[in-house]
Order: sequence, then structure tokens, then C-alpha cells
Amino acid sequence: MTTLNTEISETTEEELDRCLQAAADAAESWGDLAPKERAAALETVADALDDETSALVEQAAAETGLSEGRLTGEVKRTTVQLRMFADLLRDGSYLRIVIDRQDPDFVLGARPDLRRWLTPTGPVVVYAASNFPFAFSVAGGDTASALAAGCPVVLKTHPGHPETSRRTVEIVRSALTRAGAPEGTFAAIAGRQAGIRALQDPRITAGAFTGSVSGGRALFDIAAARPNPIPFFGELGSINPAVVTSEADHEREEDVAAGFVGSFTLGAGQFCTKPGVLLLPGGSELPKQIAELAGEVSAARMLTAKIADGYRERIAEVSELPGVEVITTGTEHAADGDVPAFTPTVLHAGSVANLLEHRAALLEETFGPAAVIAEYESEGDLHRALSAVEGSLTVTLQTSGEPGPAEQDRLANLVALAGKRAGRVIFNQWPTGVAVTPAQQHGGPYPATTAVSHTSVGTAAIDRFLRPVSYQNCPEALLPAALRDANPLGLPRTVNEAGEAPGTSPKHD
Amino acid sequence: MTTLNTEISETTEEELDRCLQAAADAAESWGDLAPKERAAALETVADALDDETSALVEQAAAETGLSEGRLTGEVKRTTVQLRMFADLLRDGSYLRIVIDRQDPDFVLGARPDLRRWLTPTGPVVVYAASNFPFAFSVAGGDTASALAAGCPVVLKTHPGHPETSRRTVEIVRSALTRAGAPEGTFAAIAGRQAGIRALQDPRITAGAFTGSVSGGRALFDIAAARPNPIPFFGELGSINPAVVTSEADHEREEDVAAGFVGSFTLGAGQFCTKPGVLLLPGGSELPKQIAELAGEVSAARMLTAKIADGYRERIAEVSELPGVEVITTGTEHAADGDVPAFTPTVLHAGSVANLLEHRAALLEETFGPAAVIAEYESEGDLHRALSAVEGSLTVTLQTSGEPGPAEQDRLANLVALAGKRAGRVIFNQWPTGVAVTPAQQHGGPYPATTAVSHTSVGTAAIDRFLRPVSYQNCPEALLPAALRDANPLGLPRTVNEAGEAPGTSPKHD
Repeated sequence: MTTLNTEISETTEEELDRCLQAAADAAESWGDLAPKERAAALETVADALDDETSALVEQAAAETGLSEGRLTGEVKRTTVQLRMFADLLRDGSYLRIVIDRQDPDFVLGARPDLRRWLTPTGPVVVYAASNFPFAFSVAGGDTASALAAGCPVVLKTHPGHPETSRRTVEIVRSALTRAGAPEGTFAAIAGRQAGIRALQDPRITAGAFTGSVSGGRALFDIAAARPNPIPFFGELGSINPAVVTSEADHEREEDVAAGFVGSFTLGAGQFCTKPGVLLLPGGSELPKQIAELAGEVSAARMLTAKIADGYRERIAEVSELPGVEVITTGTEHAADGDVPAFTPTVLHAGSVANLLEHRAALLEETFGPAAVIAEYESEGDLHRALSAVEGSLTVTLQTSGEPGPAEQDRLANLVALAGKRAGRVIFNQWPTGVAVTPAQQHGGPYPATTAVSHTSVGTAAIDRFLRPVSYQNCPEALLPAALRDANPLGLPRTVNEAGEAPGTSPKHD
Repeated sequence: MTTLNTEISETTEEELDRCLQAAADAAESWGDLAPKERAAALETVADALDDETSALVEQAAAETGLSEGRLTGEVKRTTVQLRMFADLLRDGSYLRIVIDRQDPDFVLGARPDLRRWLTPTGPVVVYAASNFPFAFSVAGGDTASALAAGCPVVLKTHPGHPETSRRTVEIVRSALTRAGAPEGTFAAIAGRQAGIRALQDPRITAGAFTGSVSGGRALFDIAAARPNPIPFFGELGSINPAVVTSEADHEREEDVAAGFVGSFTLGAGQFCTKPGVLLLPGGSELPKQIAELAGEVSAARMLTAKIADGYRERIAEVSELPGVEVITTGTEHAADGDVPAFTPTVLHAGSVANLLEHRAALLEETFGPAAVIAEYESEGDLHRALSAVEGSLTVTLQTSGEPGPAEQDRLANLVALAGKRAGRVIFNQWPTGVAVTPAQQHGGPYPATTAVSHTSVGTAAIDRFLRPVSYQNCPEALLPAALRDANPLGLPRTVNEAGEAPGTSPKHD
């Protein structure tokens, strides 16, 4: 029998202060551990979560309405992420060590010995998301990357899955303790006020967040308004436009229709990578096919009553817009407790001109199982539509299986524009289902993220919590072990000898 | 005969709009050039500046009062910086290309082909500094790194050296045109309002600044308050504390006194790396030696009348503080035009306790030839003093020539603390004279900089103007050349094959 504890207690000011002080106290010892030692601690956490998968999944299913299959996969993703950061730490090149040897004949005059590496920024506050109770929550990607970097984490739990959070916190804390991590390396807080106060606290050096544009922007503003501003890595909202070429419309119609409906309804449309707008060639049969397929999708429970309320309002608003036709009418159903379920809604905005006429409403993210389609008549239409979309996590291009020269010519401009609007450009696949790999980029211009140069998925996410320190003319014995001549930790390093042209490619020396 | 044009005209709204539109129009073609082609353009600029060194130096000397020797070295530094970024572009590893090959058996399910690299963010506004009329001005490090990244630059000139700026702008623009760069790759604007409007403009994607805390913070706040916030890389103010161990006090007294006075008076103390506070062991003879040496330093002209006014006020303020003794009394002298010269001032704050009592005044940067010294009685004193210093560009440690075990033990904690407070930790040298090399870190916690993870000197400065884009399942013909299987540009890349543990070290493939 699973306990549903929706009455989570808010963290008091005294409790918050203890958490923050413990994090500050832990920063040096956790950050100073050799990367391999932190790697082992992350693996201990991953093992402990793997061991408790069944209990965690059962709890999360009760709290979120998500399927056990989906949740089991999500725990796996969470532990794979932790192990991937462990691999990254063992590899060591994330430290970007560069050693410039002393050079009396340097072109600008004698150059001192300088050794640069990346060090942890210090305690980080991470805000858990509602829609991934594991992979973007307590032990999710933000936590994993911050801990990997050497930063203690103060985790603001999401009220949408409080008991799942509580159990995950216990597992993570107990695993870290077993692994020898200092007390204070990881702690959880609850409540809106505690989340705000943590971000304002001088002991916190960065924030990481996945959630809504309004919530994320409010926190970004708080971080920027501090007496000493700190970076706030928010992943806010994204419309994820998708374009279907006329070739794809002719050759891959069924595939495109099925892929689109599958992607925008996945997880009840509650993914930041949901394709929210589909741009089709004028006269396509796709709207009919999409409407039919979407009409066959079962009702899916929303994550929280608040999200359901917001979704209902948004659908009512956009359905009433001039020139917008509801081609699949979603219906609301009772589900678990007070959180309803919905079948998908598809809105046909007509022409690109009409889409742009109502861009403020139609090109804003709708969190839930709804999508907008519109028809373009020219390359110019496509460019206008994509240019009107705000910064996005992804742009998807549906083309023929093997684009020929004519289609390639038309696509080239589109690919270039897509790279300006988003952090990931996808061909003949769909944006949901983000691969957790080194080459992943989960970020994009605002409002997709508040820090366009970073990613919150994939191993490059560690860069957010690192800052460079250089040592000039430092005696060997006082250098961090990683920077000593003997390279006792066996890390990859770039070494620029006197007289050499400076390079930047690390190598094992 | 050198013309002094201090009546620079403000850029009108129409002129600004033309500059910004030209920059936006140039962004794609400049950014899409192969790195080697941008490298050649940077070298053309460097050559042109080298050719005009004498005329530029003569002009700058008249406008800033800086010596011809210093200015000649600064032009050299400026052109070496441009050439160093050209080398970085030819090396290509700054693009951080990672290719994850498709892997049907990936642990989290089939992984698509994903290829990630760094792309230019788009047009950047750069604010020139007063104190480096070349190296941090029109063609300085911010401009060089942004252009290298592939970002057009809109340069806000500094009113302290308008004619030097105008000539440098002409040389840079004409060289870029000769090198085939698109019109709009580089343009200059003047005036406070134009500088603010540029930062607010949606076509601008980042700001870079070197200057005062008040000016830099105001611009940071503007960048953060935009509907779509953009990063603002400000290098604001830094106290650069220096510590003398008792061993250094005994063994290297003369060396330390001479080095300190030379460093804090260099360039009339108008360097962001000026050591502003020196912490000495109680009872040291150094105050006497420092006072004498500082008393022998000639008057040096300030950069502008406004800086001189601010300096005069600061000295009056701190000289009156309880427990502060003026051990070298600076004097003011008439110099060129209406900008005065000053001899150095040394303030002895007494104990660390008194220094901390008046920390708001004594631990704030004074821009000019003044420094504060204080005496510590214990390790605890040192820790309290360094902890009270706000984020700094540097911390300097003066130790014995070869620290023995006892001194090392005491230094270890200090080195760790220094790495938390600053981006560069210096041993037995002084912070002024920043080496331009790959391992340099010119940055630090706020207010030293507004973006602690970045540097504004050295080749890593390019990272500020880059953002990642990933291509998923992209047909070979539509990939950017840098990411194609054949690697036609011959760039270093990390390639993760199916089934391999993911790595991050780039290699030439």
C-alpha cells in the first residue's frame, strides 16, 4: 500500500539555514575529492536507486498517474545519467587542464608558468520539475551534473510528487553517506518561500531549474538582482516547431502523421520537447490523417490538478481564435483523485498568415496533449513562421527519406535558420525522447533556456557548475595534484611548451 | 601634429539602427566562414595595426598621457591577441565537436546519430575601456574573441581616447573589408544612450565590458531585464589582495617592497589587476620601506579628468578613517591639459581588525596610484581578511623563494581560500602584466566579473560568444562541413562509436 503524502511541510527558515550552512561546509571537501572518488560516490547513488526501482516506481505512479513502464525507464535513465557523469569524471578531460610553461622568450615578454583548470563553483540550488519525477527531479540531471562538478546540492522538491521525492532524497543521502561524502553534500527543501530564500542566499553560487516560463523567469530575475548576481540555468518553455517538406508529405505521409501524433501526445503532452506546431505544405492530406489518429488516442491523466486547470484554460482560449478550426476535439475525463485526464486536441490555424496574426496565443507553449498545425504556401511563409517562433529547444524537419538535390537546396536555408532558433535540429525523427549522450544539446535561445551556451541534458551539463582558476608561478608542492608536473592523477592535459604555438587539444601526458 | 578631437558626436538612433541591422545581416556570412578564413581576416587586421603602430601610439599618448613605450607594447599585445585567436581558429578544437554515432543497442534504447558543435551567438556589443586604449578598446581582447567566434561586433567607443578610437576603427574596418569580411562585421558607436540602446536591441546576443562596478552593474541589469535576457560579460572591479608570509618578510623584504610599489603604481595605478591591499606580518619593516620607495615615484598623469576627480575624493575619504595612517602622502600636479598627475599614496590601516572595521571603504577598489597595507597577527587574521574581500581577479602570495614544509603547511589553507576568492593565484610575482596565453584566467567571483565561468584575457575568452547546436539524424549533405563524416575541414573531433563508453577528449580523425 502506497502512502500519498500531499501535505508536505514547508522548510522553516532555521531548517533552510542549516541546509545552506551544511552545503557551504561540505563544498571544500566534496569539491576537493579526486574526480575518481566522486565518480564512485555517484555510482553508489545509482546502485541504490536501481535497487529500489520497484518501490520508487509504485510510489511515483500513484502520485503522478504516469505508467509503470514509463517510470521504470525513467529511473533507468536517472541512474544511467549518474553513471555517465562518473565515466566523465574518470576521463577527466572535463577539467580542461591547460599548462603554459614558463617562456622567457615569449613574444610579449617573459611568460610565467600558468596552469588553468576548472573548479566547482560551490553550493547549487536545484529546482525539481513536475513532469519527470526522477530524471529531472531529486536525483535528476541537474543534481547529477552539479554533484559531479563537485558542488553540494540543495534540492527544492516539486510538490507534485512529494512522497516520491522524500524517498529518493533518503536513498541519495544514505548512499552518499555510505560513499564517504561529507554531510551537507546533498539536502532537500520544500516550499516556495524556501526556494526563493535559498536562491538569494550568499552561500549559493548557481541555480538550475526546469519548469514554466513564468516560474523560471521569476527565479532568473531573483538570481540577477542579488547584490552579487549568480548564474541561473533555467529550462523554461519551448514550442518546438516541426516542418514537413512537400516531398515528405508525398512520400512519408502515414509515417509523419503517426510520428507527430505519437510525439505530441506522449506523456499527455507534458514534455518540454513536445512538437507544438507543425507546418505543412498547403493542400496536404495530413490534417485529416492527424485528426483521425489523434481522435483514437486514449485519455491521459495530467500530472497535477493545477496543470490540468491551466491546460483547460489554454484550449478554451486558442479554440476561439478567428480562423482556428478544432479538427480533433479533446475531451475531459475523471481519473485518479482530483486530477483529470484529457484526450488530444488538434487545432488547425489555417494559413501561416493566420498563425502569425495570432502568434501571441498560438506560438506559446501549451503544456498538455494539444498541437497546432498550419499550412504554408511558399519558402517565404516557412521563413516567416520559423522566424516568429521564440527561441526553442528543437526544430524538426520532416523530409523525404533521402533528399535529392532540389529538396536539399530548399532545405539548406531552413537548416541554417533552424540552427539559429534552437539548440537541436532533428531530421525525420521527433523531438521527444531526448538521448542522454555527450553530443546532446538540450537548450536554446530564450525562453527555451536562460543560458543559451549550456545544456541541461547530456554530459556537457557539467560545464554549468565549473569555473576556471589559474595558478601562476606556483611551487610544485602547493599546486593541486591535478596540475603538478608528475600528473599523479593521470589526467588529460594540454601542455604548451616554451616556444610552441599555443594549442588547446588535451592529451594524456 | 596630432589632432585632439574630444567633441565626439553621439551616434543617432538612425545610425545605431543601421549599425545593428548591418551586424545582424553580417552574422550569418561571417559566422559561416570556415575558421581558417576568419583566422586570415584577423591576421589582416593585426598586420594593418602593426603597420600603423607609430601613428596610433602618437595619437594615444596625446589623448591618455600614457608613455610611448607602454603604448607601443600595448599595440603589440593587441596584435598578438588577434594572431593568437587566429591560431586557435586554425587549431579548431575550440569548436568542441562531438559526434555520437547511432547506436541501436544503447543502454537507454536506440540512440540516434547526434553531432554537436559550438556556433557563434550572433552580434555582440563591446564596451571599450579607458585604461587600455588598444588592448581593451576598439580592437582589444573582447573584439578579437567575438570576431574569432564568428560574431559581428558593435563597438561602443570610450570617450577617453576618441581620436585613437576613430583611427583604430578605420584601420579595423578597412582591413576586414580587404579580407573579404561582410559589411557590418564591425562598426563603432559613441555615446552613453547609444550604448544602452544597443544592449537592449533584440539583434544583440551578448555584451562585453571592462570598467567600473557602477557602470558595469547598470549594464548587467539592463541585459538581464530584457524580454529575452542575454549574457553580459562584465569585468568590473577588483581589490587583488596580496599576502606576505613571515618567511618572505625575512628573506625577500627588498624584493617584496620594490615589487609591490612597482605593481600598484604601474600605469598610475589604473589597472584592474592593481594589488590594492597588502597584508603583512605584524611588526614587519616593510611599511617603512614601502613608504620610502613610494615616496620616490614620480607623479603620473591620470587617464581622464573624471577618473582624477574620483581618485581625489576616494583618497580624501579613506585618509580620514579612524586608525588609518597615511604613510606616503600623494601630491597632485598639473599635467597635460586639464588632467592632473598624482604621486602615490600609501595608507596603513593598522591591524586586520581595523581594516575589517572599515572594510566598506578600505576593501573597495581605488582606481589610481594608492594602496592599503595592514598587519596580521595570526592565520585567523589572514583568513578573516581574505574572506572579507569580495570576489577578485587575483590573489597574490609572497613566500620564501622555496617554501619549506612548515611554510607550505601554513600556505596550503591560504592557497585553497585564494582559489575561492579569485580566478588567478600568483606566487612571488605581481598581478599587473597579465600574460595573454591559453592558461590565463582573467575573471573571478562578482564584482571582479559578472560571469565567473569565463575569462576576458587569453584564448578561452572565445567561449563567451559560442553556443552549442546538435544535429540529430541529419543527412550528410545537409550537415555543416565541420560535422560531415569526411571531415573536409580537418578539425579535431571526439567520435563516440556505438557500444563505446562516451568520451570527451577531441582527437584528429
